[in-house]
Amino acid sequence: MTNIAKGLEGVLFTESKLTFINGTEGILTHLGIPIQEWAENSTFEELSLALLSGHLPTAAELAHFDSQLKANREIPAELLTIIAGYPKGISAMQALRTAVSHLALFDADAENTSADARMAISIRLIAKMSTIIAAIRRTQQGLEPVAPRIDLTHAANFLYMLHGEEPTPEQARLFDIALVLHVDHGMNASTFTAIATASTLSDQYSAVVSAIGALKGPLHGGANEAVMDMLDEIGTPDKAADFVNAKLDAKEKIMGVGHRVYKYFDPRSRVLRDYAAHVAEKQGKSHYYQILEVIEKTVVDRLSSKGIYPNVDFYSGTVYSDLGIAKEYFTPIFALARISGWCASVNEYERDNRLLRPDAVYSGAVDQHYVELQDRQ
Amino acid sequence: MTNIAKGLEGVLFTESKLTFINGTEGILTHLGIPIQEWAENSTFEELSLALLSGHLPTAAELAHFDSQLKANREIPAELLTIIAGYPKGISAMQALRTAVSHLALFDADAENTSADARMAISIRLIAKMSTIIAAIRRTQQGLEPVAPRIDLTHAANFLYMLHGEEPTPEQARLFDIALVLHVDHGMNASTFTAIATASTLSDQYSAVVSAIGALKGPLHGGANEAVMDMLDEIGTPDKAADFVNAKLDAKEKIMGVGHRVYKYFDPRSRVLRDYAAHVAEKQGKSHYYQILEVIEKTVVDRLSSKGIYPNVDFYSGTVYSDLGIAKEYFTPIFALARISGWCASVNEYERDNRLLRPDAVYSGAVDQHYVELQDRQ
Repeated sequence: MTNIAKGLEGVLFTESKLTFINGTEGILTHLGIPIQEWAENSTFEELSLALLSGHLPTAAELAHFDSQLKANREIPAELLTIIAGYPKGISAMQALRTAVSHLALFDADAENTSADARMAISIRLIAKMSTIIAAIRRTQQGLEPVAPRIDLTHAANFLYMLHGEEPTPEQARLFDIALVLHVDHGMNASTFTAIATASTLSDQYSAVVSAIGALKGPLHGGANEAVMDMLDEIGTPDKAADFVNAKLDAKEKIMGVGHRVYKYFDPRSRVLRDYAAHVAEKQGKSHYYQILEVIEKTVVDRLSSKGIYPNVDFYSGTVYSDLGIAKEYFTPIFALARISGWCASVNEYERDNRLLRPDAVYSGAVDQHYVELQDRQ
Repeated sequence: MTNIAKGLEGVLFTESKLTFINGTEGILTHLGIPIQEWAENSTFEELSLALLSGHLPTAAELAHFDSQLKANREIPAELLTIIAGYPKGISAMQALRTAVSHLALFDADAENTSADARMAISIRLIAKMSTIIAAIRRTQQGLEPVAPRIDLTHAANFLYMLHGEEPTPEQARLFDIALVLHVDHGMNASTFTAIATASTLSDQYSAVVSAIGALKGPLHGGANEAVMDMLDEIGTPDKAADFVNAKLDAKEKIMGVGHRVYKYFDPRSRVLRDYAAHVAEKQGKSHYYQILEVIEKTVVDRLSSKGIYPNVDFYSGTVYSDLGIAKEYFTPIFALARISGWCASVNEYERDNRLLRPDAVYSGAVDQHYVELQDRQ
């Protein structure tokens, strides 16, 4: 019997210095620093640069990177026109994949796959991804796109472009933390797909476009949207405990609960829960937040002894929703954060590239011959 | 020491009934039937359907499939306008990736990932890929796109749309054979990337867009273009032997010679060589063909004892060039053929899907802590 590594689970295909995950102990680190410390102290910009460069940046390096991101926020006017012309009612992720692919046609250096070019394109992609997502959302709503501002952080500018008004400092910080928590998570399916694409020495745009395509699958990026669907189905906080108990009694899955990797509390979910609770205390608990609290309590009471806890998707949907983001845009926002992880992982892999070419066991017919059409049954 | 499967080489991740390759004996079969028999007897349409359906189709099945392909050749007028508006001088593969991604925005069923929907979208993609590539080429040249004709085969219609005039029967048949030879080749990097994308239960468009991005890398789809660059560098047939001998004496690589998988004659290259020779005898030997003949003789004399032979890329470039195709379009034509293999492989994998999630060995820093910006060196 030939040994098949289904899903490539447990197969080690490269080394990486970026992210470490220990699921049984609930540990996630970037460059050896726990995700909690990144979330508490850092920003999307800083973590992005740290992963791209492999070290905690100096103040000068970070200021330079920040100014590069800001200088690259604008997208070509022709692309904005094309985005505005997309048919209405389309999938936001199909639109995002298409617009990012189209962006390459305006980049004279798109085919350059040197390490320097990959880094420069990564910066352009990280900056412009934000503008593209906001432009898709606004034009799909029939609204004018809002031009980026360079006096705002990456997180605050995105919310500004999305809503046409500046977020409060608390909103901007909450969104920044959510981005930080989603920047990288080891060899997840979209990062792996980006690497598989780049492993043919294909360009950075192709790698990111592939990753967007992989992220949009419901087994990967769609989980927090599914949590919101569940909250909508429950309707009001008083019905939440009964809903959860009925599901668990029927041995059905609760969306946003449990994780393939984490058998202990997902460290990202703790951070997001605590900050969301802080904001809720200050600004009042939203409708969704109130339902979420009841589900969390019921789930933890019944399942924590088995190592099953709410994961980061459980909290992120409510956080995004409270920030005025429609649930169809949760996965594009995942991409908004993860693009830094994709680029950093591709750039790291390309420093010692090896074409990815696994194999399949052939289980089909042998010794067959072509049969003329008229002789077939 | 942890065992790392670099490039995933030799790692078996699934079963497949489509394609069998034995590199040491120079064997390639689809559904157990040798590639030589497919090339001699079959067509792009028939092999595509055979792989998609898993069996040699009946006459009625093939006629139905053929009529579906023909009915789906047109692309939306809006998309044609957008393609015509692409900046001039762009990479044909960047354009192809973008246009195929954009096509999804006009497909109301694009998000449907049921087996039936994947099959229907596969047919639409196979049919429209041809129209898209021809439209990109013509508009990049400043010419009007040529609308598809439904009275021509897939191969003949593509050449018609590309050149604006019908190919001769020999030209159409030669191109059809070249397509047949490139439809599928097991778990190559682009097919694998398509599967990785679809493994998150992402849609068929995303899978094909990812595959296009992977194919465009020079380690995968760019080999026959590199052969043409070499022929241009050589210049005339009388200089070919000296060029090859000098390269081999210097232990340098000859483009299109040798193959990672085949340690014997690439079975596809024999078929293409023989048919190209047949056409050359009949229509006169082209400039490129004359250079190629000399290189082939020199290479086979010196390297065949080591199991090194010209591969399919060695011949395909000259065949395409003799069909009036510019070398920047060789990789898009690879995609034109391989899309059937991508779709068939994705559809087969999705019948027993498993999320692809390999892992990396963490080799970075441990036990680090966040340092305030002002305290960093």
